[in-house]
Amino acid sequence: MTTTEMPGPVPAQGGGRSVASRVLSVLGAFSSERRRMSLSDISRRTEMPLTTAHRLVSELVSWGALERDRDGRYQIGLHLWEVAALAPRGLGLREAAMPYLEDLYEVSRQHVQLAVLDGAEVLYLERISSRDAVGVLSRVGGRFPAHATGVGLVLLAYAPPQAQERYLAGPLASFTARTVTDPARLRSVLAEVRRDGYVISDRQVTLDAVSVAAPVRDASDEVVAALSVVVRHGDPQPGALVPAVVTAARGLSRWLRSHPGRP
Amino acid sequence: MTTTEMPGPVPAQGGGRSVASRVLSVLGAFSSERRRMSLSDISRRTEMPLTTAHRLVSELVSWGALERDRDGRYQIGLHLWEVAALAPRGLGLREAAMPYLEDLYEVSRQHVQLAVLDGAEVLYLERISSRDAVGVLSRVGGRFPAHATGVGLVLLAYAPPQAQERYLAGPLASFTARTVTDPARLRSVLAEVRRDGYVISDRQVTLDAVSVAAPVRDASDEVVAALSVVVRHGDPQPGALVPAVVTAARGLSRWLRSHPGRP
Repeated sequence: MTTTEMPGPVPAQGGGRSVASRVLSVLGAFSSERRRMSLSDISRRTEMPLTTAHRLVSELVSWGALERDRDGRYQIGLHLWEVAALAPRGLGLREAAMPYLEDLYEVSRQHVQLAVLDGAEVLYLERISSRDAVGVLSRVGGRFPAHATGVGLVLLAYAPPQAQERYLAGPLASFTARTVTDPARLRSVLAEVRRDGYVISDRQVTLDAVSVAAPVRDASDEVVAALSVVVRHGDPQPGALVPAVVTAARGLSRWLRSHPGRP
Repeated sequence: MTTTEMPGPVPAQGGGRSVASRVLSVLGAFSSERRRMSLSDISRRTEMPLTTAHRLVSELVSWGALERDRDGRYQIGLHLWEVAALAPRGLGLREAAMPYLEDLYEVSRQHVQLAVLDGAEVLYLERISSRDAVGVLSRVGGRFPAHATGVGLVLLAYAPPQAQERYLAGPLASFTARTVTDPARLRSVLAEVRRDGYVISDRQVTLDAVSVAAPVRDASDEVVAALSVVVRHGDPQPGALVPAVVTAARGLSRWLRSHPGRP
């Protein structure tokens, strides 16, 4: 598990920025709020002269890491998506998980989610949602603070002790009146998750959603991901979903154990 | 639409390879057959000295474009996956399409697929599959020659004429005895697709699968993607699925038309 926040570009040995770090800073300048940028946006965001930015961006376009849209702005390209789809902790894990997510979707007909821990946040790898499911704040490829979400509580509970302590040292954001933000109480929630092997996170992110989550273990028995079902508060009894969520998570863990080289 | 094959690294002006092209060649060295590589694998694949490869790989690891696995080999990292998830023609399109794919899955309970054309191949952006669906050769993030698949025939049918002619000039690979590989016959199949607005590709990839596909148009009425349902040959009448596939593709097109900035 990575316990640091996403690092920025690395300065080259001997001062200045390496070209590699400049390439990465162009890619990293894109975000869910900035999916399309002009050359001058990129130049400003990466603090590179326009000519340098232009040269790098041209190389990135010709490789397919960036594409131009109709208005001449740049966006992340399909070839980068294709290469990134090979990330074992991204689409690799998602590919192995998909049948189990579908099973869980069949029995719940709500949101089914797959997430991993990255730094202090959960990163959503996949979500299957029915059209009338309760609204959620997550999106595939998006992040959320770990302590408020079902998948996040599971992943925190099984994170290395130092990473947990660093997380508990806060700050712990509050999303609803029910979000657990007291470190001592959160510590005991995490102990309960380890004891029970699942968690029910009740209206901690929004006041109408309840999440049931369970851990996914890899071939070396380490918790590498979490599965969850998110239902509307008051809808079915979320407790009734626990066996299905735990069974799906164990099924995926068993698959990962019997395929140690993958994802 | 890109009509060229994936370009390789771009040589720098004035001879030699630019650092940017070296960074991209490291990323491009990974493939579905080579998801994990040692430093010497990377050095050999990219034709870079070990020391150069080591320096670049270290920068890529510290940014999160690559990760090391337990055996010390390198794999595509989660941060690259996260940035690439912003690709409008990747997860962006997938995000918009997901409710329509789910609708289609509800009525078919087989494979439901979303694909785009990239060069001469289709690239699969998403697939939802039931556990007992017929076997298929595609995977999310994977490619396949366009002329044999339902989604590919739809995408080819609406591709610019020069791109079509280049494709018809071949070679056209044969996967089963039913794969259409004769350029004249393929040209008339493409004309039928444009006339009907859908295609049924019957056992052209494997002898037990039939695909029903329809085009998805963006805000400027250009065909940007294709949806398909893949069923077992002989199972239900594939013709009965045409209205559902066309309806889902039109629904997604309508959504894209009413959200011109997205994906």
